[in-house]
Amino acid sequence: MKAAIFNGPGDISLGQRPDPTVQDAGDAIVRVVRGCVCGSDLWYYRGVNQHKVGSIGHEFVGVVEQVGDEVTDLRPGDFVIAPFTYNDGVCPACVHGFQANCTHGGGFGNGTADGGQGQYVRVPYAAATLVKVPGTSFSDEQLASFTALSDVMCTGYHAAVSAGVKPGDTVAVVGDGAVGLSAVIGAVKLGAARVIALSRNPARQALAKEFGATDIVAERGQGAVDTLLRLTDGIGVEAALECVGTDEAITTAVGVTRPGGMVGCVGFPLYQEFKFQAAFWKNLGIRGGVAPARRYIPELLEDVLAGRINPGRVFDFQTDLDHVGEAYAAMDERRAVKSLLKVSELA
Amino acid sequence: MKAAIFNGPGDISLGQRPDPTVQDAGDAIVRVVRGCVCGSDLWYYRGVNQHKVGSIGHEFVGVVEQVGDEVTDLRPGDFVIAPFTYNDGVCPACVHGFQANCTHGGGFGNGTADGGQGQYVRVPYAAATLVKVPGTSFSDEQLASFTALSDVMCTGYHAAVSAGVKPGDTVAVVGDGAVGLSAVIGAVKLGAARVIALSRNPARQALAKEFGATDIVAERGQGAVDTLLRLTDGIGVEAALECVGTDEAITTAVGVTRPGGMVGCVGFPLYQEFKFQAAFWKNLGIRGGVAPARRYIPELLEDVLAGRINPGRVFDFQTDLDHVGEAYAAMDERRAVKSLLKVSELA
Repeated sequence: MKAAIFNGPGDISLGQRPDPTVQDAGDAIVRVVRGCVCGSDLWYYRGVNQHKVGSIGHEFVGVVEQVGDEVTDLRPGDFVIAPFTYNDGVCPACVHGFQANCTHGGGFGNGTADGGQGQYVRVPYAAATLVKVPGTSFSDEQLASFTALSDVMCTGYHAAVSAGVKPGDTVAVVGDGAVGLSAVIGAVKLGAARVIALSRNPARQALAKEFGATDIVAERGQGAVDTLLRLTDGIGVEAALECVGTDEAITTAVGVTRPGGMVGCVGFPLYQEFKFQAAFWKNLGIRGGVAPARRYIPELLEDVLAGRINPGRVFDFQTDLDHVGEAYAAMDERRAVKSLLKVSELA
Repeated sequence: MKAAIFNGPGDISLGQRPDPTVQDAGDAIVRVVRGCVCGSDLWYYRGVNQHKVGSIGHEFVGVVEQVGDEVTDLRPGDFVIAPFTYNDGVCPACVHGFQANCTHGGGFGNGTADGGQGQYVRVPYAAATLVKVPGTSFSDEQLASFTALSDVMCTGYHAAVSAGVKPGDTVAVVGDGAVGLSAVIGAVKLGAARVIALSRNPARQALAKEFGATDIVAERGQGAVDTLLRLTDGIGVEAALECVGTDEAITTAVGVTRPGGMVGCVGFPLYQEFKFQAAFWKNLGIRGGVAPARRYIPELLEDVLAGRINPGRVFDFQTDLDHVGEAYAAMDERRAVKSLLKVSELA
């Protein structure tokens, strides 16, 4: 099959990988309809993080082609959303709703396991991992939103859930990438009365507002903290959603949060200087991690199908699998917030 | 008046300070009946932290002697518990219940402000700070428990509250000092079904059990983590209460907590190596800070008066103000968990 291959920093190309087959009775083979590029994919693309040479892409939606003998609730032809990590559904982490921390789980597109940036994916623990979407005919807009549920929308929502956002709260979102924009949706979903998005990019500011942000702050660092405090009677926000992962971002998140508030953090934690003491002296909590997408997909899917949220709007660049390198370059060069990959037709 | 004076590391003696007087209309002058020594007092006693030469002791209970014109709900003769920080009660931090982070607040016994280890204390914002205890006659046991409410019991409780302990939880308490022992009470109060106390000291183990600990783990570090995981079907606890403040303690707390769980931290944060990433990869939250004792005292006082809790049991050494140096030495040499100071008679 055709699949995107990571050859080394800055070098991603279309290549060949073996067609996946059912290896365990719990497997399903999914034909990928849409994939996409994650902000975290840029870290190895840029050489910041390590990644094995090989398969890439952990986000995808598609059609079940084949299932193992033990997979009784999915059948060929079903349209499914894959969370970006697979999980067994029965370990203690899964039982507690933290499927991304599954004892037997793992990620797609890690160099070895099939990636979402390819024609087919073998999905382990398919019954526990995949979420079936009712129906067989979907608009391009719906397909984009389903793809967003694979990771980015769930990750943004996890920031809001982790921070304990509740009705009436004032929330700051640090980061205007696709995760930050999704976090705006998440904060609004949980009832935040005021959502202050930090962004200096006009297109992202506009999308943040479309998603429900009530205020935009264009400054960064201490300037952002000063402005946020001014906007909140000098006290700060109930919750800050850290959607970047840098020292500046988490320091800003802690800086804008009121004593006793919460920081929800989902940015890939590249911070090195940050110390928890900064939060301790303000009596804050910091909570977050890798999003349990599998837990969130069903409820967010209902929102998408009902037209209440439209997270696929974070995709502002689209190409096909043959041009996957361009999908990365567009994000790397900040020409795109997030790139959607059309891998195959729905039917 | 007589007051304990910090002269430098290892050197605490009884000295003289000016009798306090009402300076602001919101002040009260309190005659100290009981004071005590805090675990955090040991940090400067040992030279680990800085402290101004001068007044010491931030925990006390006593009798109101005099009030300023604006203090209408307290009168001379009232018995009061002082939280270890004073607060104005009206700033945004206070309104949100985080009085230790009060914009205009401060600590007692910081070298300049009167300390609880002295005969009298001027209390700013007295109406917002002090909690009146109904009645005028109390047993020594009650006086000890009231004194524990000034800081240590509220601090232990804050760990449990910050970790979000709820009925049925399994909780680990890291630290068997007076705060850790109080955290056992706090976890039990919030309904924890199982409280695992980490302690290698037989007397402290016994007190932890008296307070409601169901299990004792004597190991430290990785050994403690291994044992805790074995005791919890390999998954870990819902909540860990970090009551020490060292790298080993917070690393242990993170290590014993299940994916998605919470660490409540109240130990004075002396950790240097700890990075939040360790929590992120387990999807944990860490929450805590300086306890808002003023918020907790009323409800804990009800528990004390009803005989439901007996936090004064953490005091296993008692002396008088004249022998305050001995109160420190006993704790420094680990002959005592916590030292109570009898400063004056109740009546």
